Order: sequence, then C-alpha cells, then structure tokens
Amino acid sequence: MQFHHHGYVSGDPSIEPAAGVGIDRPDDLPDEIDVLIVGAGPAGVTTAAQLAQFPNVNTRLIESRAHRLEVGQADGIQARSVETFQAFGFAGAITEEAYRITEMAVWRPDPDNPSHIARASVPADDPQGISEFPHLIVNQARVQDYFVDFMEKSPARITPDYGIEFVGVTHTDDADYPLSVQLRYTADGREGEQRTVRARYLVGCDGAHSKVRKAIGREMRGQQAAHAWGVVDALAVSDFPDIRKKSIIQSKSGGNILHIPREGGHLFRMYVDLGEVAGDDHSRSIRQTSLEQTVARANEILHPYSIDVRSVARYSVYEVGHRLTDKFDDVNDPASETPHVLITGDACHTHSAKAGQGMNVSIQDGFNLGWKLGYVVDGRSPAALLNTYSEERQEVAQNLIDFDREWSTLMATKEEDFDDPGALEDFYVKTAEFPAGFMTEYKPSMITGDTTYQSLAVGFPIGKRFRSAPVIRVCDGNPLQLGHQARADGRWRLYVFADSAEAALSSWAAWLAESPDSPVVAYTPDKVDIDHLFDVKVVYPRGHADVDISRVPAAFLPHTGPFELVNYDNVFAADPEADIFKQRGIDREQGAVIVVRPDQYVAHVLPLGATDELAAFFAPILRKPKATARR
Amino acid sequence: MQFHHHGYVSGDPSIEPAAGVGIDRPDDLPDEIDVLIVGAGPAGVTTAAQLAQFPNVNTRLIESRAHRLEVGQADGIQARSVETFQAFGFAGAITEEAYRITEMAVWRPDPDNPSHIARASVPADDPQGISEFPHLIVNQARVQDYFVDFMEKSPARITPDYGIEFVGVTHTDDADYPLSVQLRYTADGREGEQRTVRARYLVGCDGAHSKVRKAIGREMRGQQAAHAWGVVDALAVSDFPDIRKKSIIQSKSGGNILHIPREGGHLFRMYVDLGEVAGDDHSRSIRQTSLEQTVARANEILHPYSIDVRSVARYSVYEVGHRLTDKFDDVNDPASETPHVLITGDACHTHSAKAGQGMNVSIQDGFNLGWKLGYVVDGRSPAALLNTYSEERQEVAQNLIDFDREWSTLMATKEEDFDDPGALEDFYVKTAEFPAGFMTEYKPSMITGDTTYQSLAVGFPIGKRFRSAPVIRVCDGNPLQLGHQARADGRWRLYVFADSAEAALSSWAAWLAESPDSPVVAYTPDKVDIDHLFDVKVVYPRGHADVDISRVPAAFLPHTGPFELVNYDNVFAADPEADIFKQRGIDREQGAVIVVRPDQYVAHVLPLGATDELAAFFAPILRKPKATARR
Repeated sequence: MQFHHHGYVSGDPSIEPAAGVGIDRPDDLPDEIDVLIVGAGPAGVTTAAQLAQFPNVNTRLIESRAHRLEVGQADGIQARSVETFQAFGFAGAITEEAYRITEMAVWRPDPDNPSHIARASVPADDPQGISEFPHLIVNQARVQDYFVDFMEKSPARITPDYGIEFVGVTHTDDADYPLSVQLRYTADGREGEQRTVRARYLVGCDGAHSKVRKAIGREMRGQQAAHAWGVVDALAVSDFPDIRKKSIIQSKSGGNILHIPREGGHLFRMYVDLGEVAGDDHSRSIRQTSLEQTVARANEILHPYSIDVRSVARYSVYEVGHRLTDKFDDVNDPASETPHVLITGDACHTHSAKAGQGMNVSIQDGFNLGWKLGYVVDGRSPAALLNTYSEERQEVAQNLIDFDREWSTLMATKEEDFDDPGALEDFYVKTAEFPAGFMTEYKPSMITGDTTYQSLAVGFPIGKRFRSAPVIRVCDGNPLQLGHQARADGRWRLYVFADSAEAALSSWAAWLAESPDSPVVAYTPDKVDIDHLFDVKVVYPRGHADVDISRVPAAFLPHTGPFELVNYDNVFAADPEADIFKQRGIDREQGAVIVVRPDQYVAHVLPLGATDELAAFFAPILRKPKATARR
Repeated sequence: MQFHHHGYVSGDPSIEPAAGVGIDRPDDLPDEIDVLIVGAGPAGVTTAAQLAQFPNVNTRLIESRAHRLEVGQADGIQARSVETFQAFGFAGAITEEAYRITEMAVWRPDPDNPSHIARASVPADDPQGISEFPHLIVNQARVQDYFVDFMEKSPARITPDYGIEFVGVTHTDDADYPLSVQLRYTADGREGEQRTVRARYLVGCDGAHSKVRKAIGREMRGQQAAHAWGVVDALAVSDFPDIRKKSIIQSKSGGNILHIPREGGHLFRMYVDLGEVAGDDHSRSIRQTSLEQTVARANEILHPYSIDVRSVARYSVYEVGHRLTDKFDDVNDPASETPHVLITGDACHTHSAKAGQGMNVSIQDGFNLGWKLGYVVDGRSPAALLNTYSEERQEVAQNLIDFDREWSTLMATKEEDFDDPGALEDFYVKTAEFPAGFMTEYKPSMITGDTTYQSLAVGFPIGKRFRSAPVIRVCDGNPLQLGHQARADGRWRLYVFADSAEAALSSWAAWLAESPDSPVVAYTPDKVDIDHLFDVKVVYPRGHADVDISRVPAAFLPHTGPFELVNYDNVFAADPEADIFKQRGIDREQGAVIVVRPDQYVAHVLPLGATDELAAFFAPILRKPKATARR
C-alpha cells in the first residue's frame, strides 16, 4: 500500500482522497448517470467497487432493498474470489471471520451395516496447492459489506442508493445519454415515487428474475428444475463427528446431504436431498416441505447420528435449475454495434448452489465488466471493448453450467447406482481447479493475445489469471507475493522478467520510457503520474542483494505525486527459496514481458525485443488522451 | 473467532454485544468511576482496551487532547507487540499498512576512501526466527486507533473522553471510591470547567511529565541527558541506495544516523546525531538546532549520497534520558497495602527512542495491568493482585534502560573509537530477542509458579510469554497457530498436552469438570458459560485424523450460550510437519498442563497428576463468586 506520497496521512491509509465525482457526490440520485447498476448483490457491488476507482465516471448503484443485506443465500468463497478480495484489500479481514475448508469428509453406508453411515474418506480440499489463497465459507452479506466499504473509501466515493427499484429502460437518440431509465422508490418515505434518469450504460445485476434482462428481451434457456433440496442454516447440537467439517453424506435409505460448516464456530448449512421433482404439481408440494420435515429427513440420512436443531437462521427449498441467456448484453451484431445494457450474475446464469459457484462467478462477471466500463466512459478505450464482456463471460457461464450439472447429478445419485463407489470423491479431487475458479481461459480477442511466445513463460498461460509466486522486493528485502502487489485500481500491468544479459531489459526499458510508440508514452495523459495507466514491475533472476537499485532503469522507478518522490516498490528479485523463474517457467536467457489486464488476466506474453508487437497490441484497446500525450 | 452462538449475527462479527456498563454508557463522564485512566497514549489505550472486556467495570479514559492523535512520536513495533495486536484482533490489518523490517544495512566509512560511506553488511533482522510475527514500523497514531476501535467494539463500549485533563488526586476515607480526582475540561466549549469525580482506581498513562506520578510523589531518577539527536520524518528524493531499508550509518567526519523507512512506501525517519550535550546552556542551544541544520548534518554524514527533502511531517530535537521511578504505584509497603494509583509507560520510565522500545514496553505495561484491574474490580481476585504490577514491570523497565543505555552508547560511538568495527552489528544480532520483546521473564510470585516441573515443557519457560507453535484443529482439520487462538478477553488459559496413554488426561479432565477443588468448578459463577473464566484447550500428540472427537473428554468441549451449543474449537492435534511436542519440548510420555495468564505469560507448568498443586496455585489468585459456585 502506497501512501504519504502526497504528504503525511494521519488516519486510515486505505481511505483514498476523494476525486472527480467523489468530491461533493450528491446523496440523491442525479438526473444524468454514466453507469447505472441495478442490484447490490455480489455482481453489482463488484462492478461498482471497480468503478469507484474511476472518479471521472459517475456511477450509481441502486438496490430495491431499503438497507444492506442481512442474511444472504450464497456462502461459498472459492480461492479465486479470495484472490480478488486481496486486490480489493480485504482478503485478510474476511479470512479472519470465515470458515476455512481444508478437507472434506465423504460418508457412505457402512458396508458392514448399511443402515448406518460411516466415514469413507477425507480428501484434502486443495491437494495440488492450486492457490496460496484459502477456500472459505462466509455469508454473502459480509462479502457485500466489504465491497461496499471499498467503494466508499475509493476516489469516486460510491455508496449504494438503497430503496430504489428498476422499472424499465428505453433507448433514445441522445448521443450522450442514450438510455432513459424508469425507476421507483421503495422506501424512506418516498415509496411509490417515480423517477426517470438518463444514463449512458445500464448494468443489470438484479438476479434470476432480472427485470433488466427482460427489458432487453434476453431469455433464460435450459432446464427449469430436476431435483429439490431443503437448505437449512442451523445452530444445533449433534453427535455427528464431522459437524465442523464439509461433508458429503450418502445414505442407503434415502438420499444425500451436503453439509457445510459456517463461519463463527457453530452455524452450519445442510443441503438435504428432497428427491426428484416430477412435474409442476409435485414441485409445488415439494416447495412446501417444512423445516421440520427437512430436519426429519436429515436425521434419517445421518443415522445413527442426529442433529438437535436449537435455532434456524434461514430455511428454504430450492430446485436446481441450469439456465443461461445466450448473450449478456443488448447487442445483436457485435461487428457493428456496441452494448449499452449489460447483465451479470444470476441475471444471466443460474445453477445449483452446491458447487458453491454462483457468488464467485458473479464476482468475476463484475470484475470483468467494471474496468471495461471505466475505460470506455473515461474515454481511455473505444466502446468496442464492451463487446468482450459478453464474449468472455457467456462461455464461462456455459462451462460452469456443464460442470454443475455433472456435480449435481453425482450428488443426487444414490450410492447403489454408482458403478464406482469412489466416483463422487474422484470427481471432487480431479476437478478441484474448476470450482477453485482458476479454469477460466479467455480466447484470443482484442484484449487477449495469441500464444506465439507462450514458451517464454509457460506458467503464465495467456487468457488465464496471472498466478502469483514469491519474490523479494529489492529496496527493503521484503519477501512478498508478486501477484499481491496488484490492487484493483483499474491499471494494466507489465511484469518484466529480465534477460540474463540485461541488455534486452535496458533497451526495452528505454523504449518504454522514451519511444512515442511506447504505450506509457502514447496513452498516459500529461497531467497525471507516469504510472497512472500502466503499473510496470521488473523481476531480476538474481538474489536481491545482488541487484544494485541505482542501476535499475528509470522505467521501473517512476516518480509520483506532487513531490516527485521515487516509487521503489516495483523492483523485485527472485526468491532463492522459491524461484519465480523456475516456478512459472520463465525463459532465464531471454526473459519475458507479461501483459496483465486490470482484472488480473494474462493478456499477452512477449519477448523483450517485441516492442512493435507490444505497441500493436494496445493500439486497438487504448485511445490517445485528448490532452496532448506525454511527448 | 466464535460468533452466531447466541443466534445469527448479520453484521461485523468483531462487534461484540454490549453488556454491563456498555449498555447505555453515558457520553459524559459520570461522577463515580471504577478505573479512571489518564492519557490515551499506547499504555492508556491498551489498559482501556483490556478493561473493555470487563463489562462489570466502569472504566473511563480521559485525554487532554481534544481529538485522536494525529502525528505520533513512536513508530517501532516489535514482534511481541504484533503478537499482542493479534490477541486484540488487529495484527493482520496493521501489518498490511506498516513497513516491515526484514534486514538492516550497516554503513561505515569506506576503508579505501574514508570520506565516503560504504555498505559494510546487511544482517537479517530476525536470523533466529524468534517469532512468527514481523518487526514493523507504523505510526503510534494508528496503533492507538486500532486499540480504540477494539475498545469501542468490546462489551463495555469504551471510547476515550477527549478534552479532559487530570489536575490532582486526594485519597479519602470512602471505602467504595477511595480517590477524589480533580479534572479540568480543555475543549469543546467546556474549556476551563472543573470537575471532581470519585474513583476506585487511577491509572497514570500521562507520559514523561506525568502529573499523576507527581501527585503520588514518585520521582524519575537517572541520567537527564547525554546525547542529542535531530529527528526528522521526511518525504525526500535521495540517491542513498538503502533509503527504503533500516540503516545505521557511521561516518568518519561526524556522527551517525539511524535511518528508518516508514509505512506507505515513501516517508522515512532519520535520527541524526547532533553530538554530546555538555551542560544546560549547551543543551538549550542544541535544542534550537533547526531542521535545515539537521538536514545539512545528515547530508554530511551520508556523503557521497544525499537527501533532497521535499516535505517534512515532523521534526524535533531530543536528548536521550534514561530515567526510572522506583515504584509504579502508590504503595510503600506491599506486605500490608494495595495500590489505588498506578502509573505506566513513560510516566515511569524513559529511554532513547532508537531501540524502538518505548511504545512497546508501554503496551505491555497496559496489558499487564488491564486484566489485574479487571479481576480486582470485578471481585474475581483480591486487591493484592495489583501489587504484582509494579513488582513485575519495574524490573522490566530497569532491564530496558540497561539495554538501551548500551545500545545508545554504541550508536553514538565514533567509528574509530570501536576496538572491533563490527561491534554495533554484533550487538544488534546477538541481542535480537530483547528488542523483539521476548526477554521478559517474571519471577515467582502469587501469579507465577516455581520451576519444579519445568522439564515437562522446556519450551514454555515459566514467567515468559507463551510462545505459539503450529497445531491442527481436530474438528475441521485447519492448520493453526495454537497461541493465536487466545483472544485478549481476560481469561486464563489451560493448555493441556495429552500423556501418551491418555489415562492421566482422562483423570485430569474429569477432575477439572467435576471436582469442587477444580478452579473451573470453584471460581466460575453459575449463571455464565463454563468457559467464562478458563479457556481450556487440549493438544494430542497424534495426527488429527487419529483423534476421535466423540472420545475427547467433555472438559475440552464446553457448552456455550443460550442454545448450549458445543464449542469444538479447543481440541487440537500435533501438526506432523511441525510437531509442537518437539518444538516446545513437551514430555510425550507424561504430557503437561501449561497455565497461561490473561496477558499471555506462562504462569505455571504442572504434571497432569498435580491437580492439588493446580488448585493450590489458583487459591490465592481467585475468589469464589458471591453467587453460589457451580457445584
């Protein structure tokens, strides 16, 4: 975290100075809005939190509820989400209050006494060490609190506008604000009051029954329901030995339980199998399954163990629906149009809760969309950038639905119907990278390069998220995770791994600092710090004591703030105990340049000599600033 | 962190429910106060934060400043302080905003060109791995903010009473409130208003010029001044290569610099040697050394490097004084009297700032005193417990002053006057445990047992702080640090290491749960949870998968809250990768009971069979509750 660089800061350094629209931001919704987000769920707060780093963008986040969420539905936090939280500054805090999954117990009918369940195995949750981040369980309400906290401390000072619902949207001829959005107040003495605001962009984060989706005529397609589950968040006394461990329980007699301990040491969530849903009438009756019936069913499955429920925080019955819209925006022909209305999260994809994916994918939808809206509205990028949102995220949602269908089917399969009794456990362990959130791999596009030079850095696959590894910061000898030095501040990152001779490094650094073709020179406005758009970091393949900071090229030591202080924090060396060059397969001879997007995905891998290709990569993505460029 | 155990908690779980005096706590200072703390510096906020966990104790913290501290003097945070912050719940958060010291550069005159300085060596800061916690630099103002945040979220809901100063104190005959304390408002439209309040205890945390100390007639003794230093907190551009690394710089020409990088990536503090202070007149002139003169002096010392100062956050000249009071309370004869006025921190000991000790020792003064005041006022302990405060902490202060005198002298010694040019560095490395805060070792007393059974657990020396080690929590397989599972909640802790046969463990657990002699049975009031006073944890010497939770004795699975839920979080197993039995020298055959005080110091080590001695140990410390004891 960098602070004091504009002068001494006495208080909480995570509170950034207000800027742009964040200065004197009106409490009441204005009549003209750049980005209007509907729905303060996981996708909405992530989009808004990212946009809060763009103080030239007037973003508002409306929510029909009159207040913050109190009891949320989702609770599974995959490692990729914790990685994202780290960029938003709250991974540490939320981990401290969360339940951490390190292993999962699999219970099956006892072969010697099949009316009893018995523990069959306890596979580790992340046996391959996919991530340095944990797999957590924490209520959605808290996740949203942390994103809201981040947006309130960011330069644009965004805070949700509670008590306002979306009614409808009309496209107009207004070039500046092409959307006319009808809203209605739902609380606060203004209930029923109607408003129409003009907006440049509308983002529907309004859930499975999204009115924004309906307004643009997109439809959810897919299977409506197949299997019903009773979901109970309970405080209970139990003799079940794994009451504090994630467990999958398959009974001989009837169905299954997915058991999830929750944060705080006592609460747990049980997904209790309520059986197949045959048709509409039947599904209505299943929907009426009472808490008492669900608990009784749980106790049958748990036999010879039982739960004595003392308090229930939340109970619902839900049916698994795997549904998806074909497009996440209002564009029919991406070759000629760019979107103005975009939808995210449950508004475009729904699936079972049991793989713990919903909130996580929604957060990534928001992270993907937020910076793109920021760049386009701020004039940094052409509007075509927004077409990449649906392109990228629709495929991710399709993959998720395919995965979830397989997982849900396995979970609902009776023990005797498995050919291999270990099938469930095998699937869980083998596919761990998917539910951890790291299988997303974007295809080549205007923001994802081709794989010509992938061999220079095989451990940073183009299109996948930049995977951190340990390094040592040269200026102070601190051991750090390279990936954790990237905040969700909307900047592109260039990670430069030095070549062995350092000749290519020197030339590259000089080009970056001086050449009119350099993206830093070409696209950074002249009245901001040189690292405003591009965060450029270098990693040397030697021990940190052998790197002489006074010989590091100026491109890696940017001046910052009104005092033109030197930022020494971007110069790293390999950690001899855990060499990043080895861990990520970097070519030690030639080095490499890794281009990383604001949402942490690897956009390109290039040789140090390929400055033309680096310049060409950014040409369609970025626009030269209206004010004179730096040189 | 345990929560939801009294029902679902929607918001921030670190906000505990208000209780006792925390319910409807008056904003204005009441006329009767149990513990009145004077001064919201490090010692004062720590004492108050600890007392905030005692909702039966009416604690008020007055501060003559009208608002929170904005720029503090102290900034060095030793590992023991971070360990303490962990117990108060903010180690993670403060570490994220702090500068971390991992190594120190030693600069001396270049042997080939003595008018230039050259880097001589870069010793690691904690080469022996003394602690799992880091050595940090962060401003005192932020440390205080975090303690205040903790006290505001604690059951007693304490918040500082700003704008009130201490005037004087009179001892009275009132048995309930034996102190009459004169106060004066200093701000907020009440400036000059006088108040007299009645108090049971008065704690002077009011700094080196403490009026509370003067009021009880204690005097600072020792050397007034010897050497002067200019201290500048600056933002600067410099070619000094270690500008972001803690450095000791000795020049040929004139004097020394201690250079400390600060949080946020840019600010640094320099202690610049201003030379010997000969007498009163001279010291007056030295005190008038200007910022410009100090910076010029720094540039001479740094030659051939220099600093170009762009902004100054704080500048002062100070002289090292090593001073100490002989007693930290108002008691002359501890055999017959107990204290009512106690003093802490700089009010009783001052020393140089350069070993980074002042704030740290003050925090430990407060941690030591807070729980003792809580126990005595709450009626849990006899007043004699308070005599141990001065006994314990006066010796620590004496040791600190001895250490600091040696360190300051070395720092002020000219390079050519050293017999051994590496003397400074050797001292730094050899004595690392002292400045890290882990050398404190309390002598046998009513709260520190003798060493008869120390051999059962050689890695937990009686009188030193309980040193954490890794364990695995049985209920969920989480890898954890055993010591980090102890919050600063005022409870005593019994860490029970199982014997190999587990027969002794079973007997001990049955005794603890059932015997009228058991401290849990004898001292826990009957209307509170069984773990209200004693937090009892067990560690098994086997892998966690081999511990059957259903066979763990009930003493380690306490019921909690209105629903009588089971707390599974106190049962641990050794981590096969880092066996705590091996790391801490626990007797695997016999096991051991480690008794740990609320301030984390090991009070006793006993065999599992020595239940009589355990009962006898607590007999003089604790009082049976006025309500009927549990059995």
